[in-house]
Amino acid sequence: MSEVSTLIAVDDPVLGTDFAIEMLRQMRALDSYGSYDTWTPAKILEPFILTKAMKREIPIIGDPDEIIVARLKVFYNAIAALIEKECGLMAVPMMNLSHEGFGRALITVGKLVVVDRTLRDVHRFGFESLSKMKDEADKLLSVALNLVGTHAAVAGL
Amino acid sequence: MSEVSTLIAVDDPVLGTDFAIEMLRQMRALDSYGSYDTWTPAKILEPFILTKAMKREIPIIGDPDEIIVARLKVFYNAIAALIEKECGLMAVPMMNLSHEGFGRALITVGKLVVVDRTLRDVHRFGFESLSKMKDEADKLLSVALNLVGTHAAVAGL
Repeated sequence: MSEVSTLIAVDDPVLGTDFAIEMLRQMRALDSYGSYDTWTPAKILEPFILTKAMKREIPIIGDPDEIIVARLKVFYNAIAALIEKECGLMAVPMMNLSHEGFGRALITVGKLVVVDRTLRDVHRFGFESLSKMKDEADKLLSVALNLVGTHAAVAGL
Repeated sequence: MSEVSTLIAVDDPVLGTDFAIEMLRQMRALDSYGSYDTWTPAKILEPFILTKAMKREIPIIGDPDEIIVARLKVFYNAIAALIEKECGLMAVPMMNLSHEGFGRALITVGKLVVVDRTLRDVHRFGFESLSKMKDEADKLLSVALNLVGTHAAVAGL
């Protein structure tokens, strides 16, 4: 595998955002053998990018493998970490996935569900571009922080 | 296996409660081959009973098998069904379990987490008696309904 990413520019400004930094932290946490030590951030986050053309190559029905499930966890763990950072309360991610790649991803703060996503076609998990992934994360984050603000009592339970 | 339960009396009054009826409904839902058709309710619920002596026979560390995980789901599904029945809002159970039998069981109503249990030693899941199991269910149910009452806005989201 080449160490240069063709899907994310090395100087993409999104790479400097809190979100990308948290994603990199989560990815490195999985990297027990230090394979990523010599990789650029762009290269480490490349597996999250799945262009329309790449998606077309993947069968519509398929079972997600462990690697893609780990990647999904990285994404929701990163969101949870950002929520926690912003609101100062512990955010706990939880994922439930069938072998066929259907399921549900939750993030709770106290007794409040701040993220609740139905998962499907997990074997084709990925985003069209780094900035599309960041948009998605921003959206989840803003809804979550709004909920915490509106229902602070439940989030504090 | 004998069709007479030695751990639950056939005329145990708990068998007539909403909880036991819901547990039986959930157990029968798993019984694709109709094996339970000739069984008494006491016999169907017997696998949930694990006396102290029985527990001692099970190694402290062990991996839960599919059957015990299914049983755990039956228990939390039954609680969710009772919550739903009482408060009239949809209650959704969710379970996350590692291969080693550690995890978390949640029930959500709207955006409110009404049951949140840390699971451990799932390979030794069971209750000392039917009435102990009912007590546990009643406790979870009462806490859950209290939460729904106190935070109705979040439960209604």
